Amino acid sequence: MYNTIFSHRSVRKYKKNPVEQQLLDSVLEAGTRASNTGNMQVYSLIVTTDETLRSGLYEAHFKQNMVLEAPVHITFCADIHRFSAWCDQREATPCYDNFLWFCTAFCDAILVSQNVALAAEEAGLGICYLGTAMYNADHIIDLLEIPKGVVPVVSMVMGYPDAETPLTDRLPLEAVVHHEKYQVPGYADINRFYSDLETSRQTLELLEINKKNTLAQIFTENRYPREANELFSRKYLETIKKQGFLF
Amino acid sequence: MYNTIFSHRSVRKYKKNPVEQQLLDSVLEAGTRASNTGNMQVYSLIVTTDETLRSGLYEAHFKQNMVLEAPVHITFCADIHRFSAWCDQREATPCYDNFLWFCTAFCDAILVSQNVALAAEEAGLGICYLGTAMYNADHIIDLLEIPKGVVPVVSMVMGYPDAETPLTDRLPLEAVVHHEKYQVPGYADINRFYSDLETSRQTLELLEINKKNTLAQIFTENRYPREANELFSRKYLETIKKQGFLF
Repeated sequence: MYNTIFSHRSVRKYKKNPVEQQLLDSVLEAGTRASNTGNMQVYSLIVTTDETLRSGLYEAHFKQNMVLEAPVHITFCADIHRFSAWCDQREATPCYDNFLWFCTAFCDAILVSQNVALAAEEAGLGICYLGTAMYNADHIIDLLEIPKGVVPVVSMVMGYPDAETPLTDRLPLEAVVHHEKYQVPGYADINRFYSDLETSRQTLELLEINKKNTLAQIFTENRYPREANELFSRKYLETIKKQGFLF
Repeated sequence: MYNTIFSHRSVRKYKKNPVEQQLLDSVLEAGTRASNTGNMQVYSLIVTTDETLRSGLYEAHFKQNMVLEAPVHITFCADIHRFSAWCDQREATPCYDNFLWFCTAFCDAILVSQNVALAAEEAGLGICYLGTAMYNADHIIDLLEIPKGVVPVVSMVMGYPDAETPLTDRLPLEAVVHHEKYQVPGYADINRFYSDLETSRQTLELLEINKKNTLAQIFTENRYPREANELFSRKYLETIKKQGFLF
């Protein structure tokens, strides 16, 4: 397990081989073993292998090639639909159409996804998360016929890796772990935390290619600029409300 | 790993033994190996072992005994503070103060938490998630001196288990996994999905004790009633806004 966790990389090149149904089922079942609020399992996994549907998902996920290539596509959803339908059939009035339960269901769906990721990797499969599920959730909802009470929170492609992927670096542990209370980092702390990342060969190449002074500018101006953040923020919020979560 | 995933239980009784620092560090480092958006690591882990602070956290988490007992308490936070401070120091204008990035940071913090959970369990430790981090996030923020740009999303207690905990059941896989597209469950599907749960001895005892006709009523009237959901929903939303995420 430690080995699986520490060997994780996001795989972006896949072989055509399908994932065997029995293996896939055991990976999905591993997902459901994650902790969840009140054992209510307010989440759903939509497993898409059909090529036409995957072409649609490819569009929704900004045409990333791996979405076409990987034989399995999983859309993890916050889902109060099933639980509410059960309440309706059992003389109980469901009351989970609010922000707290959107967050609760979001949390539980993500916990499932990480179990799925690790179980898949343990079995020799590769995965890559797609945060773009939040960006174009409305498109995915149309495509996968997702009903009210259900919202995509993250997606994942899965299959047999077709390339070696290098391990990516992380900030030093001291940057993300706070002892006892939150320790607000000072100027020198920030410099220290980001020093290795900023002086790596990859960063220097990126600065050259993008003609930027700092790596931070590549994030704020190229990768995740304000206009896009605000656009997708509004879109996702509208989608969540449209799906029946009241704020 | 499969074994660790399939053996997971929420441990609610702990021995007094502290968790060795080296072990704890490796468990936390396992957390950081999880996938994260743009490798920006917009999360923080606050690791609290101090008894006085843990007493405060015990209050914030509705006085659950395990919070007093377990030697380690981890508060997982969505955190754009560090990344934004870095941008500010690097001629870049941070632009992550919105709902999309709250959700992104939320997702990434939860992924970290599940790696931490599994790495801890693999090492013989027990954990229990506390969803109540969302319920009283404002209280936790005060106690742990959490700055703007940072919001608790989930908490976890950790330590050496002091009791055997039975494995909890899950709905059949067909209830939570949809093939190709979302398949809206019909009346008979819902009955089938919940049948084992509803006829279990534990459920029959709960109905007797709570004098309810159905298990669903125990959820909607006792465990997670509307007034509480709506109260904590409003509180959490206000806290997120106060911490600087704009909607």
